[in-house]
Amino acid sequence: MQPKPRNLKLTLAYDGTDFRGWQVQPGRTTIQGTLREAILRITDEATLPQGSGRTDSGVHALGQVATVALASPIPCLGLQIALNDTLPRSIRVLNVEEVGSEFHARKWAKSKRYRYRIYRGDVCSPFLSRYVYHHPYPLNEEEMIAAAVYVIGEHDFTSFAAVDPEEHAAATPDTEASSRSATSDDSGIRNNIRTIFHSEWRREQEELIYSVQGSGFLHHMVRNLVGTFLLVGKGTLQPDDIARILAARNRSANPGATAPASGLYLVNVEY
Amino acid sequence: MQPKPRNLKLTLAYDGTDFRGWQVQPGRTTIQGTLREAILRITDEATLPQGSGRTDSGVHALGQVATVALASPIPCLGLQIALNDTLPRSIRVLNVEEVGSEFHARKWAKSKRYRYRIYRGDVCSPFLSRYVYHHPYPLNEEEMIAAAVYVIGEHDFTSFAAVDPEEHAAATPDTEASSRSATSDDSGIRNNIRTIFHSEWRREQEELIYSVQGSGFLHHMVRNLVGTFLLVGKGTLQPDDIARILAARNRSANPGATAPASGLYLVNVEY
Repeated sequence: MQPKPRNLKLTLAYDGTDFRGWQVQPGRTTIQGTLREAILRITDEATLPQGSGRTDSGVHALGQVATVALASPIPCLGLQIALNDTLPRSIRVLNVEEVGSEFHARKWAKSKRYRYRIYRGDVCSPFLSRYVYHHPYPLNEEEMIAAAVYVIGEHDFTSFAAVDPEEHAAATPDTEASSRSATSDDSGIRNNIRTIFHSEWRREQEELIYSVQGSGFLHHMVRNLVGTFLLVGKGTLQPDDIARILAARNRSANPGATAPASGLYLVNVEY
Repeated sequence: MQPKPRNLKLTLAYDGTDFRGWQVQPGRTTIQGTLREAILRITDEATLPQGSGRTDSGVHALGQVATVALASPIPCLGLQIALNDTLPRSIRVLNVEEVGSEFHARKWAKSKRYRYRIYRGDVCSPFLSRYVYHHPYPLNEEEMIAAAVYVIGEHDFTSFAAVDPEEHAAATPDTEASSRSATSDDSGIRNNIRTIFHSEWRREQEELIYSVQGSGFLHHMVRNLVGTFLLVGKGTLQPDDIARILAARNRSANPGATAPASGLYLVNVEY
Protein backbone atom coordinates (compact mmCIF):
# COMPACT_ATOMS: atom_id res chain seq x y z
CA MET A 1 0.00 0.00 0.00
CA GLN A 2 1.26 3.45 -0.95
CA PRO A 3 1.87 5.52 2.23
CA LYS A 4 -0.40 8.53 2.63
CA PRO A 5 1.59 11.69 1.74
CA ARG A 6 2.50 13.94 4.66
CA ASN A 7 1.88 17.66 4.27
CA LEU A 8 5.17 19.45 4.99
CA LYS A 9 5.60 23.16 5.69
CA LEU A 10 8.95 24.58 4.54
CA THR A 11 10.30 27.94 5.68
CA LEU A 12 12.74 29.38 3.14
CA ALA A 13 15.20 32.24 2.79
CA TYR A 14 16.58 33.23 -0.59
CA ASP A 15 18.73 35.77 -2.35
CA GLY A 16 16.44 36.48 -5.31
CA THR A 17 19.05 38.34 -7.40
CA ASP A 18 19.81 35.49 -9.78
CA PHE A 19 16.28 34.03 -9.98
CA ARG A 20 13.33 34.86 -12.23
CA GLY A 21 11.06 35.06 -9.22
CA TRP A 22 9.30 32.34 -7.23
CA GLN A 23 7.04 30.81 -9.80
CA VAL A 24 8.09 27.91 -12.00
CA GLN A 25 8.50 28.90 -15.68
CA PRO A 26 9.76 26.79 -18.57
CA GLY A 27 13.43 27.47 -19.38
CA ARG A 28 13.94 29.94 -16.52
CA THR A 29 15.61 29.52 -13.16
CA THR A 30 13.03 30.16 -10.47
CA ILE A 31 12.88 29.44 -6.74
CA GLN A 32 9.88 27.12 -7.04
CA GLY A 33 11.40 25.24 -9.97
CA THR A 34 14.78 24.87 -8.25
CA LEU A 35 13.06 23.60 -5.11
CA ARG A 36 11.03 21.09 -7.13
CA GLU A 37 14.22 19.77 -8.76
CA ALA A 38 15.92 19.35 -5.36
CA ILE A 39 12.90 17.50 -3.92
CA LEU A 40 12.79 15.24 -6.98
CA ARG A 41 16.47 14.42 -6.62
CA ILE A 42 16.16 13.61 -2.90
CA THR A 43 12.82 11.76 -2.80
CA ASP A 44 12.22 10.77 -6.44
CA GLU A 45 8.82 12.45 -6.07
CA ALA A 46 7.77 14.94 -8.75
CA THR A 47 5.71 17.46 -6.82
CA LEU A 48 5.48 21.23 -7.01
CA PRO A 49 5.80 23.04 -3.66
CA GLN A 50 3.07 25.67 -3.21
CA GLY A 51 4.24 29.03 -1.88
CA SER A 52 2.39 31.55 0.29
CA GLY A 53 2.50 33.77 -2.79
CA ARG A 54 4.79 34.68 -5.66
CA THR A 55 7.81 36.87 -5.30
CA ASP A 56 9.01 38.67 -8.43
CA SER A 57 12.37 38.50 -10.21
CA GLY A 58 15.12 39.76 -7.92
CA VAL A 59 12.96 39.95 -4.78
CA HIS A 60 14.42 38.31 -1.66
CA ALA A 61 12.84 36.30 1.16
CA LEU A 62 13.78 35.91 4.79
CA GLY A 63 10.83 33.65 5.60
CA GLN A 64 8.83 32.49 2.59
CA VAL A 65 6.54 29.56 3.41
CA ALA A 66 5.71 26.67 1.09
CA THR A 67 3.92 23.39 1.51
CA VAL A 68 4.68 20.15 -0.24
CA ALA A 69 3.00 16.72 0.02
CA LEU A 70 5.52 13.88 0.20
CA ALA A 71 5.04 10.15 0.58
CA SER A 72 8.73 9.52 1.37
CA PRO A 73 9.26 8.67 5.06
CA ILE A 74 12.30 10.99 5.36
CA PRO A 75 12.33 12.81 8.77
CA CYS A 76 11.80 16.59 8.70
CA LEU A 77 15.34 17.41 9.89
CA GLY A 78 16.80 14.93 7.40
CA LEU A 79 14.85 16.57 4.57
CA GLN A 80 16.03 20.03 5.65
CA ILE A 81 19.67 18.89 5.65
CA ALA A 82 19.33 17.05 2.34
CA LEU A 83 17.66 20.07 0.71
CA ASN A 84 20.38 22.42 1.95
CA ASP A 85 23.01 20.00 0.60
CA THR A 86 21.25 19.89 -2.79
CA LEU A 87 19.99 23.46 -3.32
CA PRO A 88 22.26 26.30 -4.45
CA ARG A 89 23.60 28.34 -1.53
CA SER A 90 21.31 31.20 -2.55
CA ILE A 91 18.27 29.23 -1.29
CA ARG A 92 18.23 27.91 2.29
CA VAL A 93 15.60 25.82 4.04
CA LEU A 94 15.32 27.26 7.56
CA ASN A 95 12.75 24.80 8.86
CA VAL A 96 10.67 21.77 7.86
CA GLU A 97 7.67 20.63 9.89
CA GLU A 98 4.72 18.33 9.35
CA VAL A 99 1.34 20.09 9.31
CA GLY A 100 -2.26 18.92 8.96
CA SER A 101 -3.35 17.86 5.48
CA GLU A 102 -5.74 20.81 5.30
CA PHE A 103 -2.98 23.43 5.83
CA HIS A 104 -2.32 25.54 2.71
CA ALA A 105 0.56 28.05 2.56
CA ARG A 106 -1.40 30.62 0.56
CA LYS A 107 -5.02 30.17 1.64
CA TRP A 108 -4.22 29.99 5.36
CA ALA A 109 -1.96 33.05 5.44
CA LYS A 110 -3.41 35.64 7.85
CA SER A 111 -0.81 38.30 7.15
CA LYS A 112 2.53 38.93 5.54
CA ARG A 113 5.38 41.26 6.36
CA TYR A 114 7.62 42.90 3.78
CA ARG A 115 10.69 45.09 4.22
CA TYR A 116 12.25 47.51 1.72
CA ARG A 117 15.85 48.68 2.23
CA ILE A 118 17.16 51.95 0.73
CA TYR A 119 20.87 52.67 1.11
CA ARG A 120 21.47 56.42 1.54
CA GLY A 121 25.28 56.64 1.52
CA ASP A 122 27.21 58.09 -1.42
CA VAL A 123 29.02 54.86 -2.33
CA CYS A 124 27.24 51.54 -1.83
CA SER A 125 29.49 48.67 -0.76
CA PRO A 126 29.74 45.88 -3.38
CA PHE A 127 28.77 43.49 -0.56
CA LEU A 128 25.49 45.34 -0.02
CA SER A 129 24.43 46.38 -3.52
CA ARG A 130 22.54 43.15 -4.32
CA TYR A 131 20.47 43.62 -1.17
CA VAL A 132 19.35 47.25 -1.18
CA TYR A 133 18.17 50.01 -3.51
CA HIS A 134 20.94 52.60 -3.63
CA HIS A 135 19.35 56.07 -3.55
CA PRO A 136 21.92 58.68 -2.43
CA TYR A 137 19.88 61.71 -3.51
CA PRO A 138 18.11 64.14 -1.14
CA LEU A 139 14.91 62.92 0.50
CA ASN A 140 12.72 64.52 3.14
CA GLU A 141 12.53 61.49 5.38
CA GLU A 142 10.15 63.13 7.87
CA GLU A 143 7.58 63.57 5.10
CA MET A 144 7.98 59.92 4.07
CA ILE A 145 7.42 58.84 7.68
CA ALA A 146 4.25 60.94 7.75
CA ALA A 147 3.03 59.56 4.40
CA ALA A 148 3.38 55.91 5.44
CA VAL A 149 0.59 56.24 8.01
CA TYR A 150 -2.04 56.99 5.31
CA VAL A 151 -2.13 53.41 4.04
CA ILE A 152 -2.83 51.81 7.44
CA GLY A 153 -6.31 50.27 7.64
CA GLU A 154 -8.64 48.73 5.05
CA HIS A 155 -8.34 50.29 1.59
CA ASP A 156 -8.84 49.51 -2.06
CA PHE A 157 -5.22 49.40 -3.32
CA THR A 158 -5.94 49.47 -7.06
CA SER A 159 -3.84 52.67 -7.35
CA PHE A 160 -0.84 50.70 -6.06
CA ALA A 161 -1.35 47.50 -8.09
CA ALA A 162 0.57 46.57 -11.25
CA VAL A 163 -0.79 48.47 -14.26
CA ASP A 164 -1.47 45.38 -16.34
CA PRO A 165 -2.33 42.61 -13.90
CA GLU A 166 -4.09 40.50 -16.52
CA GLU A 167 -1.08 40.67 -18.82
CA HIS A 168 1.18 39.72 -15.94
CA ALA A 169 -1.01 36.75 -15.06
CA ALA A 170 -1.04 35.64 -18.68
CA ALA A 171 2.72 36.01 -19.03
CA THR A 172 3.37 33.88 -15.97
CA PRO A 173 0.97 30.95 -16.06
CA ASP A 174 0.44 29.67 -12.53
CA THR A 175 -0.64 26.23 -11.45
CA GLU A 176 -2.84 28.10 -9.00
CA ALA A 177 -4.37 30.17 -11.81
CA SER A 178 -7.86 28.75 -11.45
CA SER A 179 -8.09 29.97 -7.87
CA ARG A 180 -6.52 33.35 -8.61
CA SER A 181 -8.25 36.60 -9.33
CA ALA A 182 -7.89 38.26 -12.71
CA THR A 183 -6.36 41.24 -10.89
CA SER A 184 -3.29 39.18 -9.98
CA ASP A 185 -4.33 38.83 -6.39
CA ASP A 186 -1.76 37.37 -4.05
CA SER A 187 -4.13 35.83 -1.49
CA GLY A 188 -6.98 34.37 -3.56
CA ILE A 189 -9.29 37.27 -2.68
CA ARG A 190 -11.15 38.51 -5.76
CA ASN A 191 -10.93 42.22 -5.15
CA ASN A 192 -8.28 44.86 -4.46
CA ILE A 193 -9.28 45.60 -0.86
CA ARG A 194 -6.58 44.77 1.66
CA THR A 195 -5.94 45.66 5.28
CA ILE A 196 -2.60 47.14 6.29
CA PHE A 197 -1.80 46.60 9.97
CA HIS A 198 1.60 48.25 10.07
CA SER A 199 3.32 50.75 7.72
CA GLU A 200 6.44 52.55 8.85
CA TRP A 201 9.66 54.14 7.58
CA ARG A 202 12.65 54.15 9.92
CA ARG A 203 16.34 55.04 9.77
CA GLU A 204 19.01 52.46 10.64
CA GLN A 205 22.44 54.04 10.20
CA GLU A 206 22.87 54.58 6.44
CA GLU A 207 19.63 52.80 5.55
CA LEU A 208 16.07 54.00 5.24
CA ILE A 209 13.82 51.00 5.81
CA TYR A 210 10.12 50.55 5.08
CA SER A 211 8.23 47.86 7.00
CA VAL A 212 4.73 46.87 6.06
CA GLN A 213 2.43 44.15 7.35
CA GLY A 214 -0.92 43.42 5.76
CA SER A 215 -3.63 40.87 5.15
CA GLY A 216 -2.33 40.45 1.60
CA PHE A 217 -0.60 42.38 -1.16
CA LEU A 218 -1.45 42.97 -4.81
CA HIS A 219 1.15 42.41 -7.51
CA HIS A 220 3.90 45.10 -7.22
CA MET A 221 2.02 46.71 -4.33
CA VAL A 222 4.94 47.11 -1.91
CA ARG A 223 7.31 48.38 -4.62
CA ASN A 224 4.62 50.82 -5.86
CA LEU A 225 4.04 52.06 -2.31
CA VAL A 226 7.81 52.63 -1.94
CA GLY A 227 8.00 54.39 -5.33
CA THR A 228 5.14 56.69 -4.29
CA PHE A 229 6.64 57.42 -0.86
CA LEU A 230 9.88 58.33 -2.67
CA LEU A 231 7.95 61.04 -4.56
CA VAL A 232 6.82 62.37 -1.18
CA GLY A 233 10.46 62.35 -0.06
CA LYS A 234 11.43 64.31 -3.18
CA GLY A 235 8.64 66.87 -2.58
CA THR A 236 6.70 65.97 -5.76
CA LEU A 237 3.85 64.73 -3.55
CA GLN A 238 2.65 65.74 -0.08
CA PRO A 239 1.94 63.09 2.57
CA ASP A 240 -1.83 63.56 2.31
CA ASP A 241 -1.69 62.98 -1.47
CA ILE A 242 -1.49 59.31 -0.50
CA ALA A 243 -5.14 59.48 0.67
CA ARG A 244 -6.17 61.10 -2.64
CA ILE A 245 -4.28 58.48 -4.68
CA LEU A 246 -5.88 55.64 -2.69
CA ALA A 247 -9.35 57.14 -3.23
CA ALA A 248 -8.82 57.34 -7.01
CA ARG A 249 -8.60 53.52 -7.23
CA ASN A 250 -6.68 53.89 -10.47
CA ARG A 251 -2.99 53.20 -11.08
CA SER A 252 -2.91 56.11 -13.57
CA ALA A 253 -3.73 58.49 -10.69
CA ASN A 254 -0.44 57.46 -9.05
CA PRO A 255 2.72 59.06 -10.48
CA GLY A 256 4.95 56.79 -8.37
CA ALA A 257 7.26 54.33 -10.14
CA THR A 258 7.74 50.71 -9.15
CA ALA A 259 10.83 50.69 -6.90
CA PRO A 260 13.64 48.25 -7.89
CA ALA A 261 13.33 44.63 -6.78
CA SER A 262 16.77 44.46 -5.09
CA GLY A 263 15.55 46.28 -1.96
CA LEU A 264 12.48 44.11 -1.30
CA TYR A 265 12.23 41.23 1.20
CA LEU A 266 9.32 38.98 2.09
CA VAL A 267 10.07 38.89 5.84
CA ASN A 268 7.55 36.31 7.07
CA VAL A 269 4.06 34.92 6.75
CA GLU A 270 1.75 34.59 9.74
CA TYR A 271 -0.90 31.86 10.05
CA MET B 1 51.40 69.64 -26.68
CA GLN B 2 50.11 66.44 -25.05
CA PRO B 3 49.59 67.00 -21.28
CA LYS B 4 51.89 64.97 -19.02
CA PRO B 5 49.87 62.06 -17.59
CA ARG B 6 49.05 62.28 -13.87
CA ASN B 7 49.67 59.20 -11.75
CA LEU B 8 46.39 58.35 -9.96
CA LYS B 9 46.01 56.02 -7.00
CA LEU B 10 42.64 54.22 -6.87
CA THR B 11 41.34 52.44 -3.78
CA LEU B 12 38.86 49.71 -4.71
CA ALA B 13 36.40 47.33 -3.06
CA TYR B 14 34.97 44.39 -4.94
CA ASP B 15 32.79 41.33 -4.56
CA GLY B 16 35.04 38.84 -6.37
CA THR B 17 32.40 36.08 -6.68
CA ASP B 18 31.58 36.68 -10.33
CA PHE B 19 35.10 37.63 -11.51
CA ARG B 20 38.01 35.50 -12.71
CA GLY B 21 40.34 37.30 -10.35
CA TRP B 22 42.12 40.63 -10.66
CA GLN B 23 44.33 40.09 -13.65
CA VAL B 24 43.24 40.85 -17.19
CA GLN B 25 42.74 37.70 -19.31
CA PRO B 26 41.41 37.41 -22.85
CA GLY B 27 37.74 36.41 -22.97
CA ARG B 28 37.31 36.41 -19.19
CA THR B 29 35.68 38.94 -16.89
CA THR B 30 38.33 40.20 -14.48
CA ILE B 31 38.54 43.18 -12.14
CA GLN B 32 41.53 44.71 -13.94
CA GLY B 33 39.93 44.21 -17.36
CA THR B 34 36.58 45.65 -16.24
CA LEU B 35 38.36 48.66 -14.73
CA ARG B 36 40.33 49.21 -17.96
CA GLU B 37 37.11 49.18 -19.98
CA ALA B 38 35.47 51.72 -17.66
CA ILE B 39 38.51 54.03 -17.83
CA LEU B 40 38.53 53.74 -21.63
CA ARG B 41 34.85 54.59 -21.82
CA ILE B 42 35.23 57.65 -19.57
CA THR B 43 38.57 59.09 -20.76
CA ASP B 44 39.08 57.47 -24.16
CA GLU B 45 42.52 56.40 -22.83
CA ALA B 46 43.50 52.75 -23.24
CA THR B 47 45.64 52.10 -20.17
CA LEU B 48 45.87 49.13 -17.85
CA PRO B 49 45.62 49.96 -14.13
CA GLN B 50 48.38 48.27 -12.11
CA GLY B 51 47.26 46.62 -8.87
CA SER B 52 49.17 46.12 -5.62
CA GLY B 53 49.00 42.43 -6.52
CA ARG B 54 46.68 39.88 -8.01
CA THR B 55 43.67 38.49 -6.25
CA ASP B 56 42.43 35.08 -7.42
CA SER B 57 39.04 34.07 -8.82
CA GLY B 58 36.33 34.63 -6.22
CA VAL B 59 38.55 36.54 -3.76
CA HIS B 60 37.14 39.83 -2.45
CA ALA B 61 38.74 43.19 -1.67
CA LEU B 62 37.87 45.87 0.84
CA GLY B 63 40.83 48.07 -0.08
CA GLN B 64 42.76 46.97 -3.15
CA VAL B 65 45.05 49.70 -4.50
CA ALA B 66 45.82 50.35 -8.16
CA THR B 67 47.61 53.09 -10.04
CA VAL B 68 46.80 54.40 -13.47
CA ALA B 69 48.46 57.14 -15.55
CA LEU B 70 45.92 59.42 -17.24
CA ALA B 71 46.39 62.48 -19.42
CA SER B 72 42.71 63.49 -19.14
CA PRO B 73 42.26 66.55 -16.91
CA ILE B 74 39.24 65.02 -15.09
CA PRO B 75 39.27 65.89 -11.35
CA CYS B 76 39.83 62.99 -8.92
CA LEU B 77 36.32 63.17 -7.43
CA GLY B 78 34.80 63.43 -10.91
CA LEU B 79 36.70 60.33 -12.00
CA GLN B 80 35.56 58.43 -8.90
CA ILE B 81 31.91 59.33 -9.57
CA ALA B 82 32.18 58.54 -13.29
CA LEU B 83 33.85 55.18 -12.56
CA ASN B 84 31.16 54.23 -10.04
CA ASP B 85 28.50 55.19 -12.60
CA THR B 86 30.19 53.04 -15.26
CA LEU B 87 31.46 49.99 -13.35
CA PRO B 88 29.19 47.13 -12.31
CA ARG B 89 27.91 47.52 -8.73
CA SER B 90 30.19 44.66 -7.67
CA ILE B 91 33.24 46.96 -8.05
CA ARG B 92 33.36 50.30 -6.22
CA VAL B 93 35.99 53.00 -6.32
CA LEU B 94 36.34 54.22 -2.73
CA ASN B 95 38.93 56.90 -3.41
CA VAL B 96 40.97 58.53 -6.19
CA GLU B 97 44.00 60.69 -5.44
CA GLU B 98 46.93 62.04 -7.40
CA VAL B 99 50.32 60.66 -6.34
CA GLY B 100 53.90 61.28 -7.44
CA SER B 101 54.92 59.81 -10.79
CA GLU B 102 57.32 57.41 -9.05
CA PHE B 103 54.60 55.83 -6.87
CA HIS B 104 53.87 52.20 -7.82
CA ALA B 105 51.02 50.25 -6.23
CA ARG B 106 52.94 46.96 -6.09
CA LYS B 107 56.56 47.98 -5.63
CA TRP B 108 55.87 50.57 -2.94
CA ALA B 109 53.62 48.33 -0.82
CA LYS B 110 55.13 47.93 2.66
CA SER B 111 52.51 45.49 3.93
CA LYS B 112 49.14 44.00 3.19
CA ARG B 113 46.33 42.79 5.38
CA TYR B 114 44.06 39.88 4.54
CA ARG B 115 41.02 38.53 6.36
CA TYR B 116 39.42 35.10 6.09
CA ARG B 117 35.85 34.56 7.31
CA ILE B 118 34.52 31.13 8.35
CA TYR B 119 30.83 30.85 9.17
CA ARG B 120 30.26 28.30 11.96
CA GLY B 121 26.45 28.17 12.16
CA ASP B 122 24.47 25.16 10.92
CA VAL B 123 22.63 27.00 8.15
CA CYS B 124 24.40 29.82 6.31
CA SER B 125 22.16 32.71 5.27
CA PRO B 126 21.84 33.10 1.48
CA PHE B 127 22.84 36.75 2.02
CA LEU B 128 26.15 35.68 3.58
CA SER B 129 27.14 32.60 1.60
CA ARG B 130 29.01 34.49 -1.14
CA TYR B 131 31.14 36.20 1.50
CA VAL B 132 32.28 33.43 3.86
CA TYR B 133 33.43 29.82 3.88
CA HIS B 134 30.66 27.80 5.56
CA HIS B 135 32.27 25.24 7.84
CA PRO B 136 29.74 24.02 10.45
CA TYR B 137 31.77 20.99 11.58
CA PRO B 138 33.60 20.68 14.95
CA LEU B 139 36.83 22.67 15.32
CA ASN B 140 39.05 23.17 18.34
CA GLU B 141 39.29 26.93 18.04
CA GLU B 142 41.72 27.30 20.95
CA GLU B 143 44.23 25.12 19.11
CA MET B 144 43.80 27.21 15.94
CA ILE B 145 44.42 30.39 17.95
CA ALA B 146 47.61 28.81 19.33
CA ALA B 147 48.75 27.67 15.87
CA ALA B 148 48.39 31.11 14.25
CA VAL B 149 51.24 32.51 16.37
CA TYR B 150 53.82 30.16 14.78
CA VAL B 151 53.86 32.03 11.46
CA ILE B 152 54.62 35.45 12.98
CA GLY B 153 58.09 36.71 12.04
CA GLU B 154 60.36 36.18 9.04
CA HIS B 155 60.00 32.73 7.45
CA ASP B 156 60.42 30.90 4.17
CA PHE B 157 56.79 30.18 3.23
CA THR B 158 57.43 27.66 0.44
CA SER B 159 55.35 25.09 2.35
CA PHE B 160 52.37 27.44 2.07
CA ALA B 161 52.84 28.53 -1.55
CA ALA B 162 50.83 27.19 -4.50
CA VAL B 163 52.17 23.78 -5.59
CA ASP B 164 52.69 24.79 -9.20
CA PRO B 165 53.57 28.48 -9.15
CA GLU B 166 55.26 28.38 -12.58
CA GLU B 167 52.22 26.78 -14.16
CA HIS B 168 50.00 29.39 -12.58
CA ALA B 169 52.22 32.19 -13.88
CA ALA B 170 52.24 30.64 -17.35
CA ALA B 171 48.47 30.17 -17.39
CA THR B 172 47.84 33.78 -16.47
CA PRO B 173 50.26 35.94 -18.48
CA ASP B 174 50.81 39.21 -16.66
CA THR B 175 51.91 42.49 -18.12
CA GLU B 176 54.14 42.68 -15.07
CA ALA B 177 55.60 39.26 -15.83
CA SER B 178 59.08 40.51 -16.58
CA SER B 179 59.41 41.95 -13.09
CA ARG B 180 57.85 38.94 -11.38
CA SER B 181 59.61 35.99 -9.84
CA ALA B 182 59.18 32.52 -11.30
CA THR B 183 57.76 31.44 -7.93
CA SER B 184 54.68 33.61 -8.50
CA ASP B 185 55.80 36.20 -6.03
CA ASP B 186 53.26 38.85 -5.14
CA SER B 187 55.67 41.68 -4.29
CA GLY B 188 58.46 41.39 -6.87
CA ILE B 189 60.81 39.76 -4.35
CA ARG B 190 62.57 36.77 -5.93
CA ASN B 191 62.42 34.37 -3.00
CA ASN B 192 59.81 32.86 -0.68
CA ILE B 193 60.87 34.64 2.51
CA ARG B 194 58.21 36.95 3.92
CA THR B 195 57.66 38.66 7.25
CA ILE B 196 54.35 38.23 9.04
CA PHE B 197 53.61 41.05 11.49
CA HIS B 198 50.22 39.90 12.71
CA SER B 199 48.47 36.50 12.58
CA GLU B 200 45.39 35.89 14.69
CA TRP B 201 42.16 33.91 14.83
CA ARG B 202 39.20 35.44 16.64
CA ARG B 203 35.53 34.71 17.17
CA GLU B 204 32.85 37.24 16.20
CA GLN B 205 29.40 35.80 16.94
CA GLU B 206 28.91 32.94 14.48
CA GLU B 207 32.13 33.66 12.57
CA LEU B 208 35.68 32.52 13.08
CA ILE B 209 37.93 35.13 11.50
CA TYR B 210 41.63 34.97 10.58
CA SER B 211 43.53 38.24 10.25
CA VAL B 212 47.02 38.35 8.82
CA GLN B 213 49.33 41.23 7.97
CA GLY B 214 52.64 40.70 6.23
CA SER B 215 55.32 42.21 4.04
CA GLY B 216 53.94 40.22 1.11
CA PHE B 217 52.17 36.98 0.33
CA LEU B 218 52.96 34.11 -2.06
CA HIS B 219 50.30 32.79 -4.41
CA HIS B 220 47.57 30.97 -2.39
CA MET B 221 49.51 31.64 0.83
CA VAL B 222 46.64 32.94 2.98
CA ARG B 223 44.24 30.23 1.80
CA ASN B 224 46.91 27.55 2.42
CA LEU B 225 47.56 28.94 5.91
CA VAL B 226 43.82 28.78 6.62
CA GLY B 227 43.57 25.23 5.21
CA THR B 228 46.45 24.15 7.45
CA PHE B 229 45.02 25.87 10.55
CA LEU B 230 41.75 24.02 9.85
CA LEU B 231 43.66 20.71 10.15
CA VAL B 232 44.87 21.91 13.56
CA GLY B 233 41.25 22.69 14.46
CA LYS B 234 40.23 19.18 13.40
CA GLY B 235 43.03 17.62 15.49
CA THR B 236 44.92 16.19 12.48
CA LEU B 237 47.80 18.55 13.28
CA GLN B 238 49.07 20.04 16.54
CA PRO B 239 49.80 23.78 16.78
CA ASP B 240 53.58 23.22 16.82
CA ASP B 241 53.36 21.19 13.60
CA ILE B 242 53.16 24.60 11.92
CA ALA B 243 56.84 25.18 12.84
CA ARG B 244 57.81 21.79 11.41
CA ILE B 245 55.86 22.43 8.18
CA LEU B 246 57.47 25.88 7.77
CA ALA B 247 60.93 24.35 8.30
CA ALA B 248 60.33 21.74 5.59
CA ARG B 249 60.10 24.47 2.92
CA ASN B 250 58.11 22.09 0.73
CA ARG B 251 54.40 22.24 -0.10
CA SER B 252 54.30 18.43 -0.07
CA ALA B 253 55.20 18.52 3.64
CA ASN B 254 51.95 20.38 4.28
CA PRO B 255 48.76 18.27 4.30
CA GLY B 256 46.57 21.39 4.45
CA ALA B 257 44.22 22.10 1.55
CA THR B 258 43.73 25.50 -0.08
CA ALA B 259 40.69 27.02 1.65
CA PRO B 260 37.86 28.23 -0.64
CA ALA B 261 38.17 31.70 -2.19
CA SER B 262 34.76 32.94 -0.96
CA GLY B 263 36.05 33.62 2.58
CA LEU B 264 39.11 35.67 1.59
CA TYR B 265 39.39 39.48 1.58
CA LEU B 266 42.30 41.76 0.74
CA VAL B 267 41.63 44.28 3.51
CA ASN B 268 44.14 47.01 2.71
CA VAL B 269 47.62 47.83 1.48
CA GLU B 270 49.97 50.01 3.51
CA TYR B 271 52.61 52.25 1.90
